[in-house]
Amino acid sequence: MSTIQLGKLSLSIFGESHGPAVGAVLDGFPAGIRLDEEKLLRQMARRAPGQDKSATPRRESDLPRILSGVKEGITTGAPICAVVENANTRSGDYNPIPRPSHADYAAHVKYGGYNDIAGGGHFSGRLTAPFVFAGALCRQLLEPDGIFVGGHVLQIGSVQDEAFDPCRISADSLRALSGEYFAVLSQTAREKMKAEIEDARLAGDSVGGTVEVAAAGLPAGWGDPMFDGVENLISRLLFAVPAVKGVEFGEGFGFAALRGSEANDCLCVENGKICTETNRCGGITGGITNGMPLLFRAAFKPTPSIGKEQRSVDLKTGKPVAFRVKGRHDPCIVPRGLPGAEAAAAIALAELMLREGRKR
Amino acid sequence: MSTIQLGKLSLSIFGESHGPAVGAVLDGFPAGIRLDEEKLLRQMARRAPGQDKSATPRRESDLPRILSGVKEGITTGAPICAVVENANTRSGDYNPIPRPSHADYAAHVKYGGYNDIAGGGHFSGRLTAPFVFAGALCRQLLEPDGIFVGGHVLQIGSVQDEAFDPCRISADSLRALSGEYFAVLSQTAREKMKAEIEDARLAGDSVGGTVEVAAAGLPAGWGDPMFDGVENLISRLLFAVPAVKGVEFGEGFGFAALRGSEANDCLCVENGKICTETNRCGGITGGITNGMPLLFRAAFKPTPSIGKEQRSVDLKTGKPVAFRVKGRHDPCIVPRGLPGAEAAAAIALAELMLREGRKR
Amino acid sequence: MSTIQLGKLSLSIFGESHGPAVGAVLDGFPAGIRLDEEKLLRQMARRAPGQDKSATPRRESDLPRILSGVKEGITTGAPICAVVENANTRSGDYNPIPRPSHADYAAHVKYGGYNDIAGGGHFSGRLTAPFVFAGALCRQLLEPDGIFVGGHVLQIGSVQDEAFDPCRISADSLRALSGEYFAVLSQTAREKMKAEIEDARLAGDSVGGTVEVAAAGLPAGWGDPMFDGVENLISRLLFAVPAVKGVEFGEGFGFAALRGSEANDCLCVENGKICTETNRCGGITGGITNGMPLLFRAAFKPTPSIGKEQRSVDLKTGKPVAFRVKGRHDPCIVPRGLPGAEAAAAIALAELMLREGRKR
Amino acid sequence: MSTIQLGKLSLSIFGESHGPAVGAVLDGFPAGIRLDEEKLLRQMARRAPGQDKSATPRRESDLPRILSGVKEGITTGAPICAVVENANTRSGDYNPIPRPSHADYAAHVKYGGYNDIAGGGHFSGRLTAPFVFAGALCRQLLEPDGIFVGGHVLQIGSVQDEAFDPCRISADSLRALSGEYFAVLSQTAREKMKAEIEDARLAGDSVGGTVEVAAAGLPAGWGDPMFDGVENLISRLLFAVPAVKGVEFGEGFGFAALRGSEANDCLCVENGKICTETNRCGGITGGITNGMPLLFRAAFKPTPSIGKEQRSVDLKTGKPVAFRVKGRHDPCIVPRGLPGAEAAAAIALAELMLREGRKR
Repeated sequence: MSTIQLGKLSLSIFGESHGPAVGAVLDGFPAGIRLDEEKLLRQMARRAPGQDKSATPRRESDLPRILSGVKEGITTGAPICAVVENANTRSGDYNPIPRPSHADYAAHVKYGGYNDIAGGGHFSGRLTAPFVFAGALCRQLLEPDGIFVGGHVLQIGSVQDEAFDPCRISADSLRALSGEYFAVLSQTAREKMKAEIEDARLAGDSVGGTVEVAAAGLPAGWGDPMFDGVENLISRLLFAVPAVKGVEFGEGFGFAALRGSEANDCLCVENGKICTETNRCGGITGGITNGMPLLFRAAFKPTPSIGKEQRSVDLKTGKPVAFRVKGRHDPCIVPRGLPGAEAAAAIALAELMLREGRKR
Repeated sequence: MSTIQLGKLSLSIFGESHGPAVGAVLDGFPAGIRLDEEKLLRQMARRAPGQDKSATPRRESDLPRILSGVKEGITTGAPICAVVENANTRSGDYNPIPRPSHADYAAHVKYGGYNDIAGGGHFSGRLTAPFVFAGALCRQLLEPDGIFVGGHVLQIGSVQDEAFDPCRISADSLRALSGEYFAVLSQTAREKMKAEIEDARLAGDSVGGTVEVAAAGLPAGWGDPMFDGVENLISRLLFAVPAVKGVEFGEGFGFAALRGSEANDCLCVENGKICTETNRCGGITGGITNGMPLLFRAAFKPTPSIGKEQRSVDLKTGKPVAFRVKGRHDPCIVPRGLPGAEAAAAIALAELMLREGRKR
Repeated sequence: MSTIQLGKLSLSIFGESHGPAVGAVLDGFPAGIRLDEEKLLRQMARRAPGQDKSATPRRESDLPRILSGVKEGITTGAPICAVVENANTRSGDYNPIPRPSHADYAAHVKYGGYNDIAGGGHFSGRLTAPFVFAGALCRQLLEPDGIFVGGHVLQIGSVQDEAFDPCRISADSLRALSGEYFAVLSQTAREKMKAEIEDARLAGDSVGGTVEVAAAGLPAGWGDPMFDGVENLISRLLFAVPAVKGVEFGEGFGFAALRGSEANDCLCVENGKICTETNRCGGITGGITNGMPLLFRAAFKPTPSIGKEQRSVDLKTGKPVAFRVKGRHDPCIVPRGLPGAEAAAAIALAELMLREGRKR
Repeated sequence: MSTIQLGKLSLSIFGESHGPAVGAVLDGFPAGIRLDEEKLLRQMARRAPGQDKSATPRRESDLPRILSGVKEGITTGAPICAVVENANTRSGDYNPIPRPSHADYAAHVKYGGYNDIAGGGHFSGRLTAPFVFAGALCRQLLEPDGIFVGGHVLQIGSVQDEAFDPCRISADSLRALSGEYFAVLSQTAREKMKAEIEDARLAGDSVGGTVEVAAAGLPAGWGDPMFDGVENLISRLLFAVPAVKGVEFGEGFGFAALRGSEANDCLCVENGKICTETNRCGGITGGITNGMPLLFRAAFKPTPSIGKEQRSVDLKTGKPVAFRVKGRHDPCIVPRGLPGAEAAAAIALAELMLREGRKR
């Protein structure tokens, strides 16, 4: 399913890479929200390709056309449908050779060969565009209440950015990050990351990475136990972003090496508000926000489309073949995947805000 | 919500640690399945406390009573409700001091102080018992089709078990593992892990860890794009297990340091079947199984209940206090959390099998 | 599915007529509601059998045991599970003859013969008991806000009760009705109805009827367009009550013979509040409450279990047979079905109240 | 919510009467179905306005543009999004006078006045266009398996068409009916109905009616108990069609006057197949198909937009006003509502077919 019903919000993502259009229907969004179009487009721009050498130079138009749910710039309460037309709809010939680590083979089996494989079809990274748009709408629900989502590229190959200080994540710093393409905390790290990506590109290769996403301004008490906690919600949404292969909240996998006495976040009072001395839980205990900044990291695999020769199987003949993926591809999807990961957080948090009965 | 509707299966988990009972309703389970009671109880036994010094010595009865959906040992197609009575229902006095890194404070805010806090209430690890039971039922749907779920403790503190060889995971080895308490691949590692846990226990402390879970026998083509892929499904379920703070599929976070040419799973033909030379994707591409073994790892934080002195805030007075958690607690939840992580996989895979129209 | 996820509330009904127990899990019910046990039991009593000659004389214990979600009489916010043990669990031999107009044959095909057919199994009217219990819980959410659900038996065979005056339905009159067994507006009509039922009983036959259900105290603006309007919600829940075969809101089928000028509810101002001069829409326009009393009617088919000889087919031999349903059965399910229809309304309205962010 | 998640299928309807477009996303539709475009358009034509004097003479373009999920006329398995552009998007001034029996007032309260009221906005009958389109897609899943949905106008004002013979509904007759605008069984009845509608139109009035919908070719055993039976599913979908105010299955409200011995459908064997001598249950027992034709009726209220003077309240001043609805409107929505009611059945049945694991 490319439709998710969260309770208050429902989101349907449609489209295929080289089909007529991609788009989203976001249902349950409250009425009376004046949309800031410039902010919406800025989020779309962060995800758009062709911004630097690390991104695919193909032209993609990412300007969404809103078909419903908005009148004179204000939401009406009806479902919001936004469509991004595909400029490039050449479909090319049927390619019987599944690309390694792409969805090609799995989808071929699932859909009996009827799936649209051009450009990856419905599995293309291009589908992140409407998802980011839905996230951008949700940000506009959260921000007037002082809730900001932002993130940065934490790792590309062997290069690491500084990490967030989990207790000192401010709304202001997240707002600044969330407007940027290829956001990092250390400018030096970005230069090194770009060099690493360029290195991969020149080698006809690609490279993976991680992102770190946070939200500030959250009250305690949002989320539900068991299947509907903040972690469940975010991961349900996050794995919709192509190439994401892992998620960890707070210390995440780092918890394995810790003792309880090192890992526990002791409670304290700061400016009359209950908070925790440390934030190893990433702002979530028992699936519920505890009032500290939300913090998670997501892992992206390297773009599977590389220029180097690879081995696959011709589905028509059943024989092994050697081949190269043609065309030019992103040597690193991580900077463009970051707004996708942030969108997952924004959508989850908007859902939680609406569940709490806050509409504005 | 402690209820999850997956499409074909629906699962509702109820109960509080010191209330009358905990239990589960599993709806959508097909008719005509003869249940192997001994296997069900073996799964419950793996999660039960008190098996060694690493586990809490409190007595918990984990024998479920089936109230519906099974007649003369065979499922009827009606919802299956199973209840585990709580032997220990002393509730004790209201404790106004939230324990660090427990759900106490977040739940207090969410429920306005009305939540049952005795023993953690609905957030207790005891709620994993009905979840494991639901997983045990789902195994009995999968196993006659040759699909086995199993796993092992991969890390406790500084001790590592051997990892699965992602391409060579067999149904037989998983079946063996899935019957065991504190399953590991290397017996030496288990001894060291037990020593590490005992060390923590003697220090009035606790320790975290990771588990590695796999499934063998899966066909290619199960799962859906975007919000309903195998990763989305498993993580939705997995974060219902208390203390889980991260999940990664295949290489997971290890992908960040890899190049595409190192990370891609090239396709090949083996015994007339299309498979991949490596299995860094953990058996899933585009959210859909590709016929290789499913593989993921989950991170558990250290049990937050420790004997050492900690700092918190008295919710009645609003003042900081130093306190110790009383009673005896698991110094390490990981061996008992493993069957919970496996249950998440078993439930997700049973759902996918039923979606494919296979009922037996 | 016997599980329904409404958005805020989720309800799972389990059990089989002659199995160990029937019960319900109501998830999403807010914390901090002090339950009035006497009112809960009164609703259960209204549905219980054996109250007069019109009802089955078999003994059924309808006292629910609450297993979770309630502590010292106050809800905790965790799922509420209530179980009603079955006193009579004789299962009898397998009956290969499907009873006419029962679920027997359809269920036999669906479940491949594995369904529990004793007493109708999961399709028994006994399953209305946990449903009524869930409705009784929901009433306790609505009533402190001045929202009351009540109804009466409108028709049994050829006998009609007076109908509600759709504009003059008061909370007080509904409260009075909703505590009664076999509620009617005209006491004379009840006597005639009882005579009609007795007549059917003496003839070894049964008789159908209708009920009329209303809710007073609703604000305008509850409900959603398209698939999630008040009508959609109520009918989704109402058809869970065995024997219900139709529902109409406001004028319902009577609209067919009306002109718009006769059917339209003109708006007016009364005591400073906008309302309508008439209430032919039954309090709902566009799926959304308009502030007038909610009003609907439901049709029940005659109990299909009758003493008269009927024709069926022996599923073992495939041959036609003549047979009689043994034992004693309700000659009219309508008076006991009424609390079921009211429960459907109460659950739907509680869901809508919670969606609006009102928790108390 | 204008999004419904049925289990296998998910449907999202978006758009506003005078906004840029209306449309639908149908997710979960299987791959490999070659769509018959001519049949799709015929269904759209049945719902389109302006076909005779009974329908609104405004021009509406009903030709959908498919944006995704279909390639070279064959479904790909990805979500199908279809958009119908609105030719007439003049929005006019804000009208502070809610029209009687329209959603205007209820929606005004719900959306705080931000809803798009031009032409009824998201509550317009125009939203039935994408719903009928989704139904037309579903028909193409059902028909190759011999399952046909069809219906006819049963009543307009005082005029009645013949009713279906519930046991003798054939696939052929339904196929013929389902291609027609203003389908009836008796041509005489249609002429009288048209006269009744013309009469209402000349009087500046409108008139209500009922439709009867059936499906032939269904196997026994489809549907689920309690909340997910055929009746629950169809009514959830049916009340999405504007103006529908009631639904009854089989004898429906007629059951109230019957005895069990008259109402029961005795089982028999015909051509080696188990069926029932009568079909008063409308093909459904216990929520599950029994192999007999599915049969239900839906009631439509008269179009609330009439030329006659009516009373309302000016929301700006809070004062009563007399006014007339301007423009020309359908004096009877029933003939155009019929394909909507059929679409509800087609979508429900396609969902059930997919649940059974039949994909083609």
